[in-house]
Amino acid sequence: MDGTSETRSMIVDGVREGLMNDWKILQHVFKLVQRDETLCADPQQWKEQKIIDFMQPEELKQHIDLTIKEKESSTLLDLEQICQQVIRYSVKTSHGRFHNQLFGQLDPFGLAGAWITEALNTSSYTFEVAPVFSLIETELISTVCRLAGYSQGDGIMSPGGSTANMYGLVLARYKRLPHVKSTGMFGLRPLVIFTSEDAHYSLKKAAHWLGIGADNCIAVRTNARGQMSLADLEDKIKAAQARGHDPLFINATAGTTVLGAFDDIAGIADIAERHGLWLHVDACLGGAALLAYKHRSLLAGLQRADSFAWNPHKTLGVPLQCSLFLTRESNLLAHCNSIEVNYLFQQDKFYDITYDTGNKSVQCGRKIDAFKFWLMLKARGYGNYGHLVDHAIEMSRLLEQKLLSRADRFRLVLEQHEYSNVCFWYIPKSMRVQNASEETPEWWSRLYKVAPKVKEQMAYSGTLMIGYSPLTSRQLGNFFRMVLTCFPVLEAGELDVILDEIERLGELCQL
Amino acid sequence: MDGTSETRSMIVDGVREGLMNDWKILQHVFKLVQRDETLCADPQQWKEQKIIDFMQPEELKQHIDLTIKEKESSTLLDLEQICQQVIRYSVKTSHGRFHNQLFGQLDPFGLAGAWITEALNTSSYTFEVAPVFSLIETELISTVCRLAGYSQGDGIMSPGGSTANMYGLVLARYKRLPHVKSTGMFGLRPLVIFTSEDAHYSLKKAAHWLGIGADNCIAVRTNARGQMSLADLEDKIKAAQARGHDPLFINATAGTTVLGAFDDIAGIADIAERHGLWLHVDACLGGAALLAYKHRSLLAGLQRADSFAWNPHKTLGVPLQCSLFLTRESNLLAHCNSIEVNYLFQQDKFYDITYDTGNKSVQCGRKIDAFKFWLMLKARGYGNYGHLVDHAIEMSRLLEQKLLSRADRFRLVLEQHEYSNVCFWYIPKSMRVQNASEETPEWWSRLYKVAPKVKEQMAYSGTLMIGYSPLTSRQLGNFFRMVLTCFPVLEAGELDVILDEIERLGELCQL
Repeated sequence: MDGTSETRSMIVDGVREGLMNDWKILQHVFKLVQRDETLCADPQQWKEQKIIDFMQPEELKQHIDLTIKEKESSTLLDLEQICQQVIRYSVKTSHGRFHNQLFGQLDPFGLAGAWITEALNTSSYTFEVAPVFSLIETELISTVCRLAGYSQGDGIMSPGGSTANMYGLVLARYKRLPHVKSTGMFGLRPLVIFTSEDAHYSLKKAAHWLGIGADNCIAVRTNARGQMSLADLEDKIKAAQARGHDPLFINATAGTTVLGAFDDIAGIADIAERHGLWLHVDACLGGAALLAYKHRSLLAGLQRADSFAWNPHKTLGVPLQCSLFLTRESNLLAHCNSIEVNYLFQQDKFYDITYDTGNKSVQCGRKIDAFKFWLMLKARGYGNYGHLVDHAIEMSRLLEQKLLSRADRFRLVLEQHEYSNVCFWYIPKSMRVQNASEETPEWWSRLYKVAPKVKEQMAYSGTLMIGYSPLTSRQLGNFFRMVLTCFPVLEAGELDVILDEIERLGELCQL
Repeated sequence: MDGTSETRSMIVDGVREGLMNDWKILQHVFKLVQRDETLCADPQQWKEQKIIDFMQPEELKQHIDLTIKEKESSTLLDLEQICQQVIRYSVKTSHGRFHNQLFGQLDPFGLAGAWITEALNTSSYTFEVAPVFSLIETELISTVCRLAGYSQGDGIMSPGGSTANMYGLVLARYKRLPHVKSTGMFGLRPLVIFTSEDAHYSLKKAAHWLGIGADNCIAVRTNARGQMSLADLEDKIKAAQARGHDPLFINATAGTTVLGAFDDIAGIADIAERHGLWLHVDACLGGAALLAYKHRSLLAGLQRADSFAWNPHKTLGVPLQCSLFLTRESNLLAHCNSIEVNYLFQQDKFYDITYDTGNKSVQCGRKIDAFKFWLMLKARGYGNYGHLVDHAIEMSRLLEQKLLSRADRFRLVLEQHEYSNVCFWYIPKSMRVQNASEETPEWWSRLYKVAPKVKEQMAYSGTLMIGYSPLTSRQLGNFFRMVLTCFPVLEAGELDVILDEIERLGELCQL
């Protein structure tokens, strides 16, 4: 294609004149999304529908033409077909048998909100370009502060829980050593942060990015249930002090990634107070317990934390990304993160500039993540989600019972989990033994290889998706980690279907 | 609401049974988006449609019930009405007279892609949950690497340009001082980074977050056109060395925020090589020139940069967020950012794990930002966007001509801008003078107050939105910064409509 001005005006005019017609693509997309096999949200059809039509990467490349060319002449129908192919080979996370991660099945109201946000396409940095959405984010943050027991408090939405945890660490550092903002950390004694050995890896990544160093993110031992050991925490704080380092920050985990364990926040708060450390709670996974009636006590002591992170896109069915960072300190976020920015945050605006939220953020342009969650809350009230969270946790307890009742075929990792994660091994026929003495180290080694094999069968059959993981802190090899969420709203019978299917797939494996 | 198990099962059953009906909300939303007044994308109707129905924050709160309650009993129709109110009071960034930021008007194919991504709701960390999207992100990154002249190269999509610039700085630090990843920056000589005084504030924020310190982000002077002074850059590198600091990183800006100036990348690359510094290019604003036929030379030398950031959500009409970070080094991203993560990135998977992109990322869950852009490229080919970029720049030059032809009423900040930003003052009738000697410092002070006043009129009339800004590096007060983008695809006559409207609104102001 040449770049002459004749070519250009021909092409530019063509695009301009075609634009109103191009908008019809939304009708095509809407038609595709309405098809039962796109979202797979109807329980009546789960049995027939595949969660995934799995292909190996190289094979998949043969089925969808991924190449990006200088010239294209696709019609709307061509594009509809491309979209149909993309949907066909994508994972149907809304299929009720997707239990691989905590973003299983969308709430319809969440998707509706996301579509509107995308259509209105704006950024949440100023009231000027996002008047309604700025107020909605502020309302959402103050509601969550209230639920958490923060009488004042502030917050910001961030692009994922890893960034939300980073906000906590940056705030803690700024509070203790405000000059770091201008002069950096050079010449300081090493700052040290503490988190449990079962905590999320984002804390280590944060230590790396923020210049603190992953080695200065100290792993504290966990107890049998997966909670941070208070004794070991205090020992490690003292050890850091003894070697001349500077303890700064404790991260408590409210819902560990694998076991779903909740640290004793109140107990940790005592230690944080005693040593003058910032207490952050990574409640990305378990923050939904804030809304629960029966299981709210999992978060007891949260009101004493200096900050916490919560991903409503986990558990509640809000579309990814929806992550909240909250802090008990009312003005610290803006002080910490603002840099004089004349082109965006002018002081001579014709409205009250405290409604501009961008000064609190480390981002500039920022997606509108609040609206979809707010619309869900408008639709159902937060009480309904609380009941759904309680239900998901109770179904997890029921799943444990069902696993125990098939004790020859399944083995639980923990006798009882605290949240909606359930971790277990599947024992294939060929490995079932009569007494415990036959469960030798070799037997366990073999068992650790089962989950990846069953997972492969899951992918190829497309009937079920459950993640697996080892737990290195306990030298445990691969087991399934099934996570129940608010959506799908499971009935008891479905749990048997799941276990039956694991057994069926398990017998197809070459072990 | 009580938390008894009877209440719970009643409510949970109600949500489950209502779910298929709740999905009908998408029809309501689709209907709303189809309304002409939602997107305001049809040029025939711009004259009648308001970009914004502006209200002061407190007033707006009276019009939309923002409160979030424990109990709600909204019907689908209620929710449709809420959404309609939200849309009504939001800014119509797709209205062709929104020129406030670079995310004016969506490309329909971009929105179509975004809707599909939202519906399929997954994360881009593993091939397992995002098979098609992982391949698409990889294809997009390798295409952009090719266009940039990176023979090998790697990249990742990030939630905005600020984060993309941070990736560059973290990578530079890791390359020079890999041990910082584990031990932190304590005890090091201060690391210093250089960027022009007109560069984006994200560099300062990055220095703050990463522990380098905003003061160690040195502002280099700019020349008359807004480009970084090579002489001053080299002086400041030497000065940093002389005071025992450790120069690490130069950020060149390809499209400054206010003036749209492009630094001399090749000239800066010479300096970076001479002193062994990492060269990053913040092409968030101007990266679209990569596709241009006529204006591609703005980015001459980009192939010599170690990394660059580009936001296709600026200029091209991709929905926010769509940010690319690219680096010339092929394996550095994963080395720098990976942390052993057993539950997600298992080594014993049944597919080639090099297709899992999450190890390169600082995030864990990560929105699918690649697909919407890829779909646009499939629809139009990248060549068409190149012509649209050239067209937008040429229309900006034409706007300058039109401003010059109204020299009594308008004054350009630069005689000629390089990209599609055009910066200018409006001179109201009462301030028009016969000769230059009357343009005293007091006259200029008064002139700096005009843009905010006109902006207020814009908001209340809803007919036009153009941003304004001062430029502190030149001691210049508020002027309009109008940014032309690929969409709307403007015709020459529209520029006169815009200037006429500024004149009309200008005369309504109390100065």
